[in-house]
Amino acid sequence: MANGSYKVAVVGATGLVGREMIAVLEERGFPVAELILMASTNSAGSKVEFAGAEHTVRVAAPENLDGAEIVLMSAGGGPSKQLAPAFAEAGAVVIDNSSAWRMDEDVPLVVPEVNPEDVGGYPTRGIIANPNCSTIQMVVALAPLHAKATLKRVVVATYQAVSGAGRAALDELSEQVTGLFGQRDFEAKVFPKRIAFNCIPHIAAFGEDGFTFEETKLLQETRKILHAPDVGVCATCVRVPVFNGHAEAVVAEFESPIFAPEARKILRESPGVMLMDEPEAGAYPTQLEAEGSDATWVGRIREDKSAPNALAFWCVADNLRKGAATNAVQIAELLARDWLP
Amino acid sequence: MANGSYKVAVVGATGLVGREMIAVLEERGFPVAELILMASTNSAGSKVEFAGAEHTVRVAAPENLDGAEIVLMSAGGGPSKQLAPAFAEAGAVVIDNSSAWRMDEDVPLVVPEVNPEDVGGYPTRGIIANPNCSTIQMVVALAPLHAKATLKRVVVATYQAVSGAGRAALDELSEQVTGLFGQRDFEAKVFPKRIAFNCIPHIAAFGEDGFTFEETKLLQETRKILHAPDVGVCATCVRVPVFNGHAEAVVAEFESPIFAPEARKILRESPGVMLMDEPEAGAYPTQLEAEGSDATWVGRIREDKSAPNALAFWCVADNLRKGAATNAVQIAELLARDWLP
Repeated sequence: MANGSYKVAVVGATGLVGREMIAVLEERGFPVAELILMASTNSAGSKVEFAGAEHTVRVAAPENLDGAEIVLMSAGGGPSKQLAPAFAEAGAVVIDNSSAWRMDEDVPLVVPEVNPEDVGGYPTRGIIANPNCSTIQMVVALAPLHAKATLKRVVVATYQAVSGAGRAALDELSEQVTGLFGQRDFEAKVFPKRIAFNCIPHIAAFGEDGFTFEETKLLQETRKILHAPDVGVCATCVRVPVFNGHAEAVVAEFESPIFAPEARKILRESPGVMLMDEPEAGAYPTQLEAEGSDATWVGRIREDKSAPNALAFWCVADNLRKGAATNAVQIAELLARDWLP
Repeated sequence: MANGSYKVAVVGATGLVGREMIAVLEERGFPVAELILMASTNSAGSKVEFAGAEHTVRVAAPENLDGAEIVLMSAGGGPSKQLAPAFAEAGAVVIDNSSAWRMDEDVPLVVPEVNPEDVGGYPTRGIIANPNCSTIQMVVALAPLHAKATLKRVVVATYQAVSGAGRAALDELSEQVTGLFGQRDFEAKVFPKRIAFNCIPHIAAFGEDGFTFEETKLLQETRKILHAPDVGVCATCVRVPVFNGHAEAVVAEFESPIFAPEARKILRESPGVMLMDEPEAGAYPTQLEAEGSDATWVGRIREDKSAPNALAFWCVADNLRKGAATNAVQIAELLARDWLP
């Protein structure tokens, strides 16, 4: 590590992901010389604890950056579009969790276990993009198999928790559940339909081809991260009444033969993967196991006989952690280790 | 209709599906001359209403059949294995909802919208099998597309409600949810892990190939119903914290080209299908829309560019009704219309 410690800013510090970023920085012992917290005008002024000391949240603006070298940003696409270049202009490297910059060809899109070397592309814009939650966990599991057998096509159906839609979404699920049990009325505000005891195949807006942008991200981001522009991905993204943790049913087709025992052996040794796959003992992961963990949990690996060289599996991760905050802090760790002065 | 009305027995009359069979017989105006209700010794003696009159539930046994011509049976695989042949021996046609007889080559497996003519095979054993809930809704949607473009392969991930596991499963979801909100302890009894705010990729036991029997049923039953022994099906079956209604994310590959507008046109005119697919207006079905309905709701039809002639769609049905009771009563309607004296 070059200079030993860094002035770090977290932007969107009062949101679910922002809070998790602060927690993960502390848990992983990231060398924070000073922590600067920012949020929208609504949340500015609130207090957040870090390393035993209370920090006051400032308004998100370049003039409040105060010489921070690393900015972890989770403030949504609109604010990112405007603020990330301004922070970069002021000299910081911005690690942005929104979708604003992911497909910009001058911005690296990084999952540290998969394409850590891409971090090196940051100087062009001063921005590194954190992929979408559902992409991160899928590529952590697919990349080691791709290295062995060359990925051709993925069909994936997701089971995504409400925490991915922010704190109001957690409240909405709670309110609808207690409302139903207490015979009280409620409205759907965050989600387009009732989410309590219901599954909604609609995350983000619909594109002209009928796929939602959440589904299209799984295609575009997977290609960019794996440097595999010909890989096909057909995704169905579904919100389920789970507070936290995303699960995915994945069927992957490869160029070369790959069998379940070999896939288990590869994934058992892969960074960031927690293999929980003992079919004979009924061991497999669910959102419960993944919550609070930084790993991508993989189980239910089996050979799909309906296509050549096809494997089916199930993967689960904590979408606020590996799907967002942890991945961003891991990128900061790579920056600190290899790139920053 | 040959003789106008029939003596009908419902076996498993106090279970979730049995109750629904009784309700559906009444709703659809099935010509019931007399209704005989049976259940296990535990439930015998209880009272159930039908057509304004109270009926006492008898012990499920051939000597209590009392000349019934049609038996609607939903009593689980073990009892069916033993009782269905005994009821058939006593002269009834048994429409069995368990998995006991589905793959028997002398037993027709029927979805009335798809293969009604197969009902004619009933005399060999006197038994007609009702397919698994997750199969029924999938083939109702696939069959008309298969007729147009010839189905080759299906990848499906399910979002299955707890009602498919019986009344104790409904109670378990309620108890776990209220327990979590009230900080009370609870155990998982019906399901292998906590189902409240969690998704469990484990329905029925695991086979040696790592697929669960629920998943294997989707392959075997689809082939038998469609008379398409070469169709491939790779399924991931997942229990979700929803009380009632199964949803499925389906990706189907065909021999010939088929596009989304054409698929919509075909499905709009297909029996048993309720098309709810206006992507531009964000209209698509969820379990909420399907509950209480006899249709298979289809939406989110889109062209999957990652394989030739591939379509993705989302389908939802009430698993207790079209997935079980309604399908069985529809089979009885075919019997009454075309086959019984």
